[in-house]
Amino acid sequence: MPIRTVVWNEFLHENENEAVRSIYPHGIHRTIADALSRDGGIDATTATLEEPEHGLPQSRLDETDVLIWWGHKAHGRVSDEIVDRVQQRVNEGMGLLVLHSGHFSKIFRRMMGTPCSLRWREAGERERLWVINPSHPIAQGIDKAIELPNSEMYGEPFLVPEPLETVFVSWFEGGEVFRSGLTYQRGAGRIFYFEPGHETYPIYHDAQVQTVLRNAVHWANNPARPWKDVSNAPNVPIEEARERIVKKGLSLHQAGEEGFR
Amino acid sequence: MPIRTVVWNEFLHENENEAVRSIYPHGIHRTIADALSRDGGIDATTATLEEPEHGLPQSRLDETDVLIWWGHKAHGRVSDEIVDRVQQRVNEGMGLLVLHSGHFSKIFRRMMGTPCSLRWREAGERERLWVINPSHPIAQGIDKAIELPNSEMYGEPFLVPEPLETVFVSWFEGGEVFRSGLTYQRGAGRIFYFEPGHETYPIYHDAQVQTVLRNAVHWANNPARPWKDVSNAPNVPIEEARERIVKKGLSLHQAGEEGFR
Amino acid sequence: MPIRTVVWNEFLHENENEAVRSIYPHGIHRTIADALSRDGGIDATTATLEEPEHGLPQSRLDETDVLIWWGHKAHGRVSDEIVDRVQQRVNEGMGLLVLHSGHFSKIFRRMMGTPCSLRWREAGERERLWVINPSHPIAQGIDKAIELPNSEMYGEPFLVPEPLETVFVSWFEGGEVFRSGLTYQRGAGRIFYFEPGHETYPIYHDAQVQTVLRNAVHWANNPARPWKDVSNAPNVPIEEARERIVKKGLSLHQAGEEGFR
Amino acid sequence: MPIRTVVWNEFLHENENEAVRSIYPHGIHRTIADALSRDGGIDATTATLEEPEHGLPQSRLDETDVLIWWGHKAHGRVSDEIVDRVQQRVNEGMGLLVLHSGHFSKIFRRMMGTPCSLRWREAGERERLWVINPSHPIAQGIDKAIELPNSEMYGEPFLVPEPLETVFVSWFEGGEVFRSGLTYQRGAGRIFYFEPGHETYPIYHDAQVQTVLRNAVHWANNPARPWKDVSNAPNVPIEEARERIVKKGLSLHQAGEEGFR
Repeated sequence: MPIRTVVWNEFLHENENEAVRSIYPHGIHRTIADALSRDGGIDATTATLEEPEHGLPQSRLDETDVLIWWGHKAHGRVSDEIVDRVQQRVNEGMGLLVLHSGHFSKIFRRMMGTPCSLRWREAGERERLWVINPSHPIAQGIDKAIELPNSEMYGEPFLVPEPLETVFVSWFEGGEVFRSGLTYQRGAGRIFYFEPGHETYPIYHDAQVQTVLRNAVHWANNPARPWKDVSNAPNVPIEEARERIVKKGLSLHQAGEEGFR
Repeated sequence: MPIRTVVWNEFLHENENEAVRSIYPHGIHRTIADALSRDGGIDATTATLEEPEHGLPQSRLDETDVLIWWGHKAHGRVSDEIVDRVQQRVNEGMGLLVLHSGHFSKIFRRMMGTPCSLRWREAGERERLWVINPSHPIAQGIDKAIELPNSEMYGEPFLVPEPLETVFVSWFEGGEVFRSGLTYQRGAGRIFYFEPGHETYPIYHDAQVQTVLRNAVHWANNPARPWKDVSNAPNVPIEEARERIVKKGLSLHQAGEEGFR
Repeated sequence: MPIRTVVWNEFLHENENEAVRSIYPHGIHRTIADALSRDGGIDATTATLEEPEHGLPQSRLDETDVLIWWGHKAHGRVSDEIVDRVQQRVNEGMGLLVLHSGHFSKIFRRMMGTPCSLRWREAGERERLWVINPSHPIAQGIDKAIELPNSEMYGEPFLVPEPLETVFVSWFEGGEVFRSGLTYQRGAGRIFYFEPGHETYPIYHDAQVQTVLRNAVHWANNPARPWKDVSNAPNVPIEEARERIVKKGLSLHQAGEEGFR
Repeated sequence: MPIRTVVWNEFLHENENEAVRSIYPHGIHRTIADALSRDGGIDATTATLEEPEHGLPQSRLDETDVLIWWGHKAHGRVSDEIVDRVQQRVNEGMGLLVLHSGHFSKIFRRMMGTPCSLRWREAGERERLWVINPSHPIAQGIDKAIELPNSEMYGEPFLVPEPLETVFVSWFEGGEVFRSGLTYQRGAGRIFYFEPGHETYPIYHDAQVQTVLRNAVHWANNPARPWKDVSNAPNVPIEEARERIVKKGLSLHQAGEEGFR
């Protein structure tokens, strides 16, 4: 069964900025979805900010294996309620790929717990993403490094937790470095942050960037049964303990009572 | 200079429940603060839910090196605004110790990004916390294991990210295990989750538990200058790049403009 | 293509000890290989200490995707030269599963860098392996915990580096705990340590243990092209630098010379 | 009590190569030891390859808190027996700082389990070490980045395990990047790899590099009592189990017998 992938985009700059529209006439989401669809194992659809529930009703998230997130100028317009449900789905096992300026999205900051801040410069300078772990599934098909002739600089320190794995580190013409491909595990969900993607350059048209995105969808897909009750904290009754015990001492709770939250 | 430590407690069960009051007549926070104060290198004060701003105005947090958090039945009554400021301070470098039922506190779930759920049973059963890394600063003075004759069972899976270090793992009489001492780094802040502490048992009167708390305050204290702008994402102007570059291609931003958030 | 898996066993206790022989008449390796072969995606063969080159000539290792290691009383008889080549193959991408008393094998201590020591007791006591991450590929098909009526106790501290992931933690009847399923990444190779397996109990006949072993073979298999030159440190000539540079200052090496090792 | 620190150097290039001698007339070890001694909390002495037992008899290692290692062309001449004892001491709690070409030393490869290989170029190019975690003890006093006008390029992939923390990442003029400051915990010992240091450039005369070395000595020092029996695997007799158990089933070992190794 193909991996059900939703490409989410705030889809504002493509409508407001001529330069961006010329590069992504149907939106960044459309370009990415088309690139993913060249892989028969991926079933890619799209969702955008202005759709009802931002295109992410519960029923659709429940049928999504991997969510890709691109946002830039309207992070604050994403509803907290929808971020709650996306976060829950990631913890249940939905993969999450966060792209470029999505570092400041509500969902990424939620999953990380840190500010996700960084340094930046919009000079169209050269970027080179070095493969740190060539044996990683996300780096398959990439030979040593990806060269981007024009990119926005993102520089360290990048305020995220130590990652599970550092897959790419970037060199910038102006003198900075950036950990540009990082993996995380949160609950049953796998998260990949991938740095390239400024909307005034045709980065998602790059063949190697597209290869990374396809690889990352496969990597982030967790085929385990969704962990629907991942947020629950059930009581284990004394009579169901694996070892025989008898109650001692005092209690706050009556037998069968729910825990506090 | 002693480590400025604030012990926060929701301080409800001690007022409502006779059994809890008999164990902690002045509140859990008072017992912990007294235990910390036996260490001349720690300056311990307290704060509680019902105080204005929960006892955590910005000015006080700015003068706090380590915050200890105990809450159980009123996590939802902690104001989001105050959780925001605590989170910011942790990212700036304030240490955070989260105790027992604090696993479901807003601040801990914020810092982790995961549900922080677990299994539980209130049977007064025996718990034994094994030291996994006897060379860790938090475990100094503990010989192999801490024995608690009566404890609430907390069982795996515990829905937190993989820790930086696993310091303790607990054995329970009823047959469960739990990773009962875990460390994390988030921004400039160090976080330690420590599982024992149910309020119907005199756990914070235990000498070894008190040793762990004192050790943990020292470990969590980051003497580095607070990272006040940890959440900022400054632009690095082209003329201040470390390597000489010239602007190429298109931009979204005018020179000197703020980034989006 | 099925995953080419070699089950290695020192195969001594089965020949010397009547009790062990009665449980594993054809050797532990045979029981494990049979269990793996029930999965059509695994092609399992065996190798033992007394075979020439311990059954692990270079040509065979080059055709091996995953190696499983069981040893107990003859770790010192394994040739250093063969350990060298196994280590190289793991770094190139061969998966490695280390079982039970293999914690003290040369290959595991080599990959870890630490003593891999632990505490132990042979009392036939009950062990319960709790699943810490139910969404992990290695834990699929296991419901909450594996119960072993008789097991050798292995207790913490277990002297290994912090793992990539803690998949199982064990409870023992006599009061100890143990991190009984741990993953590591070394070079291109994935390593899983799995604690159960004492040879005087029929542990590898247990259906759930067999499920874990099959899962672990799939997890440890890295389909990336073997990284044959993983140990090389090539010079990058100045004229092949990605950015144009000119030589400055002094050198130890002549152009084209090999580096030191 | 000051931190007893031994600076080890193979001390060959300073004697054989005029350029190196002009920079380090008394050897790299002497320059580093002098830099450390400016910190009253550090007591720095030196040891070299040609001394008896390479200057590292057991009695001296037992009195050493932190060992600094610099080697380049004679890694193979370091005796395995002495590497064994250094490794044991690190696992017991001695800190280890590995510098530059020490990436290929026996002791570092032992502690890592991986090839520790990398790419390199000796062109005297500019290197900039960016601070990834400004709140880390090792980075105190360093403002954003260290600039080295001439350096040997070390490029990724660097074949080491994922670190505990990434403290520095380097930018090179020729276009490469490198994770140039990495921390590890092995047993009770803390390890820091620090990349700069090629002997044809005066890198250890740089004030900021010296600051990092002093910081790293403090960070690597573990004040816990040395874990002398870290490599032992003691039997826990049935009658000393924390929970009462009775022997069940068969055994390989007689009561009181040593385990296998």
